[in-house]
Amino acid sequence: MQNKSSLLTLKEPDTKKKDLRRVKTHPDFWYPVAWSHEVGPGKALDVRFSGRHIVVVRPLDGLPYALDGLCPHRQVLLAKGAVCSGTLKCRGHGLTFNRDGECVSSGLAADTTSLRAKTWACREKDGLIFVFMGQQALANTISLPDFPRVRDPNYRTRRFGRVVNCHYSFMHENLMDMNHQVLHSKLVGKMKPRFLGMERGENFVEARYTFARTGGKQPLSEALIYGQRRRDGRDFAYRDVMTIRTNYPYQRLTIETQGKPDPVMDLWISYVPQDRDELTNRTFGLLSIRRLKIPLVLDIAWPLLVAFTERVFFEDREIVELEQKAWTELGGDHNIEVFPVILALRNLLLSQGISEPA
Amino acid sequence: MQNKSSLLTLKEPDTKKKDLRRVKTHPDFWYPVAWSHEVGPGKALDVRFSGRHIVVVRPLDGLPYALDGLCPHRQVLLAKGAVCSGTLKCRGHGLTFNRDGECVSSGLAADTTSLRAKTWACREKDGLIFVFMGQQALANTISLPDFPRVRDPNYRTRRFGRVVNCHYSFMHENLMDMNHQVLHSKLVGKMKPRFLGMERGENFVEARYTFARTGGKQPLSEALIYGQRRRDGRDFAYRDVMTIRTNYPYQRLTIETQGKPDPVMDLWISYVPQDRDELTNRTFGLLSIRRLKIPLVLDIAWPLLVAFTERVFFEDREIVELEQKAWTELGGDHNIEVFPVILALRNLLLSQGISEPA
Amino acid sequence: MQNKSSLLTLKEPDTKKKDLRRVKTHPDFWYPVAWSHEVGPGKALDVRFSGRHIVVVRPLDGLPYALDGLCPHRQVLLAKGAVCSGTLKCRGHGLTFNRDGECVSSGLAADTTSLRAKTWACREKDGLIFVFMGQQALANTISLPDFPRVRDPNYRTRRFGRVVNCHYSFMHENLMDMNHQVLHSKLVGKMKPRFLGMERGENFVEARYTFARTGGKQPLSEALIYGQRRRDGRDFAYRDVMTIRTNYPYQRLTIETQGKPDPVMDLWISYVPQDRDELTNRTFGLLSIRRLKIPLVLDIAWPLLVAFTERVFFEDREIVELEQKAWTELGGDHNIEVFPVILALRNLLLSQGISEPA
Repeated sequence: MQNKSSLLTLKEPDTKKKDLRRVKTHPDFWYPVAWSHEVGPGKALDVRFSGRHIVVVRPLDGLPYALDGLCPHRQVLLAKGAVCSGTLKCRGHGLTFNRDGECVSSGLAADTTSLRAKTWACREKDGLIFVFMGQQALANTISLPDFPRVRDPNYRTRRFGRVVNCHYSFMHENLMDMNHQVLHSKLVGKMKPRFLGMERGENFVEARYTFARTGGKQPLSEALIYGQRRRDGRDFAYRDVMTIRTNYPYQRLTIETQGKPDPVMDLWISYVPQDRDELTNRTFGLLSIRRLKIPLVLDIAWPLLVAFTERVFFEDREIVELEQKAWTELGGDHNIEVFPVILALRNLLLSQGISEPA
Repeated sequence: MQNKSSLLTLKEPDTKKKDLRRVKTHPDFWYPVAWSHEVGPGKALDVRFSGRHIVVVRPLDGLPYALDGLCPHRQVLLAKGAVCSGTLKCRGHGLTFNRDGECVSSGLAADTTSLRAKTWACREKDGLIFVFMGQQALANTISLPDFPRVRDPNYRTRRFGRVVNCHYSFMHENLMDMNHQVLHSKLVGKMKPRFLGMERGENFVEARYTFARTGGKQPLSEALIYGQRRRDGRDFAYRDVMTIRTNYPYQRLTIETQGKPDPVMDLWISYVPQDRDELTNRTFGLLSIRRLKIPLVLDIAWPLLVAFTERVFFEDREIVELEQKAWTELGGDHNIEVFPVILALRNLLLSQGISEPA
Repeated sequence: MQNKSSLLTLKEPDTKKKDLRRVKTHPDFWYPVAWSHEVGPGKALDVRFSGRHIVVVRPLDGLPYALDGLCPHRQVLLAKGAVCSGTLKCRGHGLTFNRDGECVSSGLAADTTSLRAKTWACREKDGLIFVFMGQQALANTISLPDFPRVRDPNYRTRRFGRVVNCHYSFMHENLMDMNHQVLHSKLVGKMKPRFLGMERGENFVEARYTFARTGGKQPLSEALIYGQRRRDGRDFAYRDVMTIRTNYPYQRLTIETQGKPDPVMDLWISYVPQDRDELTNRTFGLLSIRRLKIPLVLDIAWPLLVAFTERVFFEDREIVELEQKAWTELGGDHNIEVFPVILALRNLLLSQGISEPA
């Protein structure tokens, strides 16, 4: 584990000059914009990325595709239109676009061939629809993120998320900073975290923790995740390792416990900016939990686990939205960060994102 | 019919420099601000014109009049006050104004003769109350708009309208551009418009269309308007002429059908800016429909016609509000217009309205 | 009584240059921020002063205290935290602050002793909690306001107030200007005010009025306040003296009637700016009414009096919020004041408040 002073000499960003909450998401990555089930065959869905409207279209047969969400003619929201086999017809004047953005017909008594809808690279994977909003020529050179446990029969995965009213950086910081256990004490009891160390590289920061329960009882949901009931604090003391890693722009949290080769939990999460100022994000999470030895136990207990994780997410959301609200009221970042991991994470997000010229 | 290139050489406005959606309504015309029934005897009503409050007062006897809507003393909304025979008494301190805007009494222990409410020329005609918001000296030189069919016993008139959240120019363009039939296809079936040509002058643009139904059935409401049931598309093909004319600042739409001397429908419509930026308008429409030969048929079917026209208006409203929303989000006009009629109309609205200095 | 011209030569403020509605409350006074009952033992309450969050904490034992409302670490709202005996523990990361603002413990794996919460001088008196938001060194040199009748058994006091959406100056002007009786004519009948004169000094303006009822009947509530039923206008004519005094920053209204040594009514009122622009205020009022000779009559009639005063306050609120709305719409002050008392009051508020540099 590096100590604070060495970290601070490692070219920390001048956060006094650059406000992290004004740093924009780097677009040269694949970002999820919708769940597959939200865009059924013959449907079109309006989604946002950093203030831009994108329409995701799934033809009656064929792969989904993405176009600029506003009609090039008069900027009517294309998602209001109709999907006719492979094309999308605008509700305003019937301009009809194919998956290449070409206007193939219209109700206008005029030549509309010059009207093209901008196209965006689009992929579907494991129930998520991704778009690539950066330089389109790069799309094929950048890999989609991977989350193999979603397809692993030894795991069951919960897909969750919603719009959270804060800059994505608050989300990264909140998940990485396991010192906020006090927030969840009503749900999980008194947990004492022990910081095990961190690693960092050009495009990642990783922190490891272990925990001891110093008060309260283990909730049943947690026993289901760990695959074991732990009756008192001594049972629990520092036997598991939680690893949280921001690999820009995604984040991952895994829990490994003694004597098990694979993690008992593996969470992949992405925060997609919605408005132009990126002060809201839509969170997409894939939470994979390892099945227990006895079949079906996890499935039977699943609604309990869903409720438990939803409550944890609700508490986290409350805090990050308070942090965002304070930032907005104060007109800038007044955080005084003292925890080296978060300082390193802030540095990462600052250096990987897009800063507007001062 | 003029072709596109000749139109484009006819000194088209430089819409790249001037954003039509920032052009303000020219005030030197009579604008409707209320329906007569909204201002009963002894009532005062607050209305808006381009952000300004105006109070329309109808004394217990005598003609309605209009004053500035905010009390000159402390800007309390005068419409909250009480009409006492011919005067209006402010709710705040009892300052009482006559129809000439003079303060004839007050509750103040001070001289209030210097406090005058600005007066606006005001007229009532055919169930509408008009004000003249331009140079007051011009009011008597400018005619009120005329709509003789409102008084013609051969027609029945529907008065309709509401606040629509868009710049008035979107309203003009939407009504003039009959290529948007796809929007109403659920209500009226598949209608194929044929553009018959346009005329333009210093203060008007007029377009003519005819239609063929290429799919779906004629709705009953439409049969009532045309005075005839048309069983298939061939019956309908190109037998009627629809004329839409923007005679700045008003708009009119008439439908004439073969073998009838008078139009079967005559719509007069005016869009009155509400807020200072003129991004909302209150629409006032007078829709006159020619009575059928058999007496009372139109009256019996009237609720059906009201519902039909309300649904058409609802669909139009959805589109223009989407266009306005996109303009606001994008921070300016990104329309790529290809239809010559609309290019001419935009030119007209730009040249007749008030552009703010760049 | 001074006449208007002499007043106007007495160095009136240049209200054309300085907009009174942009003048901020001077912080070097004690301001009420909460009622005592809102902050029970072991509770923390978030209150506002001119846009700032303040958390008022009442330990399980001991006097209440006030800290900056946002945690110095990540600006989470401290009022969301838990009061643990004498300290306040932030909901975010468990940073725990004592009444001196020192961070005495935290869940962070880092040194947090540098994190201090700013403290604000705080006092409790007669059911109100006050803070001192100016230079803290001055707090002990400035007296809390006094309202002895709250503790006087010959009076019964109503505590009232709420957030009113206007600049505090509108509140002062509204109460001082008794020419607005027309506003309350439905509640109190037709009251004719007679202005008896004013006094002014460096930090106060005081106006005196008397009234005659020229129409309508005396409401029962008023009879309870005056301690006498007055059957006709002659009974009422000019027998009472109402004194309204703004002693910056507080305001007071007393009513004295013939033959009684003490006022029949004594109102103390304070307007506390909520948002940074000070265009909303929270009003705290202490309305003391002298008990009648017959015991318990006032107590039995109390709900009636509460309803009556609440309705008067509601009508006043409507007017001041209309005035504020007009100011906001017009983008500045367009008041044309003609009443010398209000001119003097505006001068006082301008000179005592904080004007931003032009």
